Amino acid sequence: MSTTPLDGATFGPDTTVASDEDLTQTIEGFQATAEVSLLQDYFDQFDALVDEMRLHITEDGLWASAVDPANVAIIVEDLDESAFDRYMASGGMIGFNLGRVIDILSMGDKGELATLELDLETRKLHIQIEELSYTLALIDPESIRKEPDIPQMDLPVTAVVEASDFDRGLTAADMVDNHLTLRTGTTDDGVDALYLEAEGDTDDVDLELTVDEDLVAFEDDGEGGNSLFSLDYLKDINKVIPGDVEITIELGSEFPVKLHYDHNEVDGDAKSGVTVMLAPRISKE
Amino acid sequence: MSTTPLDGATFGPDTTVASDEDLTQTIEGFQATAEVSLLQDYFDQFDALVDEMRLHITEDGLWASAVDPANVAIIVEDLDESAFDRYMASGGMIGFNLGRVIDILSMGDKGELATLELDLETRKLHIQIEELSYTLALIDPESIRKEPDIPQMDLPVTAVVEASDFDRGLTAADMVDNHLTLRTGTTDDGVDALYLEAEGDTDDVDLELTVDEDLVAFEDDGEGGNSLFSLDYLKDINKVIPGDVEITIELGSEFPVKLHYDHNEVDGDAKSGVTVMLAPRISKE
Amino acid sequence: MSTTPLDGATFGPDTTVASDEDLTQTIEGFQATAEVSLLQDYFDQFDALVDEMRLHITEDGLWASAVDPANVAIIVEDLDESAFDRYMASGGMIGFNLGRVIDILSMGDKGELATLELDLETRKLHIQIEELSYTLALIDPESIRKEPDIPQMDLPVTAVVEASDFDRGLTAADMVDNHLTLRTGTTDDGVDALYLEAEGDTDDVDLELTVDEDLVAFEDDGEGGNSLFSLDYLKDINKVIPGDVEITIELGSEFPVKLHYDHNEVDGDAKSGVTVMLAPRISKE
Repeated sequence: MSTTPLDGATFGPDTTVASDEDLTQTIEGFQATAEVSLLQDYFDQFDALVDEMRLHITEDGLWASAVDPANVAIIVEDLDESAFDRYMASGGMIGFNLGRVIDILSMGDKGELATLELDLETRKLHIQIEELSYTLALIDPESIRKEPDIPQMDLPVTAVVEASDFDRGLTAADMVDNHLTLRTGTTDDGVDALYLEAEGDTDDVDLELTVDEDLVAFEDDGEGGNSLFSLDYLKDINKVIPGDVEITIELGSEFPVKLHYDHNEVDGDAKSGVTVMLAPRISKE
Repeated sequence: MSTTPLDGATFGPDTTVASDEDLTQTIEGFQATAEVSLLQDYFDQFDALVDEMRLHITEDGLWASAVDPANVAIIVEDLDESAFDRYMASGGMIGFNLGRVIDILSMGDKGELATLELDLETRKLHIQIEELSYTLALIDPESIRKEPDIPQMDLPVTAVVEASDFDRGLTAADMVDNHLTLRTGTTDDGVDALYLEAEGDTDDVDLELTVDEDLVAFEDDGEGGNSLFSLDYLKDINKVIPGDVEITIELGSEFPVKLHYDHNEVDGDAKSGVTVMLAPRISKE
Repeated sequence: MSTTPLDGATFGPDTTVASDEDLTQTIEGFQATAEVSLLQDYFDQFDALVDEMRLHITEDGLWASAVDPANVAIIVEDLDESAFDRYMASGGMIGFNLGRVIDILSMGDKGELATLELDLETRKLHIQIEELSYTLALIDPESIRKEPDIPQMDLPVTAVVEASDFDRGLTAADMVDNHLTLRTGTTDDGVDALYLEAEGDTDDVDLELTVDEDLVAFEDDGEGGNSLFSLDYLKDINKVIPGDVEITIELGSEFPVKLHYDHNEVDGDAKSGVTVMLAPRISKE
């Protein structure tokens, strides 16, 4: 396993972890109402990486960060308080079983409203969807793995691709290998392009996204980018990416890749932003 | 297993069984034609409880009753002769493999007609759907478990709920426990309501159906009702309840529950009525 | 196993095999572009019988023939060059993994174009769908089982049935037995008909397709037809038959059956013709 863990030497000592202040768990009150589908889309994003999650509740909305057990992928996602029909929070953090919350929300219909309300005495979360109330036992956040922050990195390449193109590249690559190379290059006609490539024992796959036709945006500070990633992680991450978003890819050479997309639109404004960082593989071995 | 079998002491000696007259099996003739979908909806209802069934054929239509092997749930359902395009029967009873009949009907399209015709010589049932004929070997009804009648009981509570609410309550309860409590009560605002509740080891579920907003009808002679049931049985029963019907629930305290719904509408008239009776669990052990 | 292999005594020494000329593999060039869905429908037909296939590339289009490992069923299918948006071929044959090609095509959307191009140096096939290129390693055609030609036979009965009727007959027969009898006969009213029949241990199935109502066409030179076939083979063959085609059935008595249908319509013209020949079973043992 030659994957460089995200909290390892690659990022160095500048890596910051969530401060103690976030971990106080002293929540004075939390009551929030939003459309079931909005909450579903929010929590679904974490489902690829973790079973239990720590949710930060602030006056401005919700945010959470999760890292997979092998420390290869980190996700950070927020949900703005303006996405809610009603939102009242005095700050703090709670922990819970993610799959359980996803199951509860799946009992609501798309148009219905869900209310989350913290019971300070019992330390349980009430989830109310129409006539149905579900009382969820919380988990001590201290018992859930602490997530590292996403390190600040200046990566030389920024490319914006459509989620459908990203999906096609992953699906094709998966037919021949369990790794994917993301790299910049130029086409036979000299046009800048981003390549999603996989090389199998007998067959090869190559998705060429050109600046002219396929990429929504492209910027390269001159260094270009060329990194190898585990397809299993990319597929898990891709599984929850909404099909109609644009993905901003920040890429270097043998460096982690950053994916960013906005979703959960209300009246044309995206209320959630997701950032995923995935560590590179040094080689296929 | 603390379930009270339906034919046991709970109902006492008044429980009547199908009379010998019904069991003569002397059928002079039976030929009936109806839409495939109507017959499917009819036979589907029994699928949760039995593999082989006894079908009573009368001048007024079909009826059947089935009880599960553990004697915990009984279903009775009729199909009025006016539901048929053509109906000719001189009375009697036949037995057959239920799954087989359901499979045969599944080969027809919704709009197509199916004709059932008894061959008196071979004692086989011909099922004709358009150009296709299926000849089904019958089973001696005496070899199929005899169903008890549904006992007459005056239950204190009658509530009419929408099938979709009933379904949601069961689905939610299933997340936390394998039992469901059906009980009457009043909301914080003093409104009468029917509750579907489940209490798990850590989480609780509570569906509150109020007279004001959710219940189609509600009657309580003053005693109220509060009984515990096996979710496995309720889920099996619920699986075949059409999504758009209203379910009449008759409830007591530590008594069996009766569910009744009409379906199979032809020109606005329901041609089938289903009654299910389910024995209570005394405790969760 | 009493199936008569198709290349055995039944067809005699007249059976011709693909000539050496077809096997030269000397392809000077091949480049062809067609809609993804057209190519999918073409290759899908072979999927029931073989894992690896030999594809003949001619100036007039593609053709291939495949036989299952037990030599019980042969399929031949062509795809006319007029089905392609662009077609350039100098003739030859290539071999490849069929499932792989089907998977690659499944990554294209219905309206998209796929380009197949042979790389003469590397002896690989490039499949390009929009921005995606897939480089497929070919298999030496000599290592893939050589298919016999479909023998010329004058069968006494020709009946044209709708694919949906054929499908219903097979589905029904499958409920009672693993063999199907195809035979001609007359209805109780003396009308010529084709019968699809199965006789199980207790139940029977009989689909009667009359000249008057169900058959698209019917011709019988007076001998009639009556042959028994393996349902497993028929079901595999049927799985890939498009639902809206008409199937021409050529039938004899204890002789192979020939099924023929045209599909892959472009501007109202079918560009592919499929012929399947299936050996009869002498008895059910």
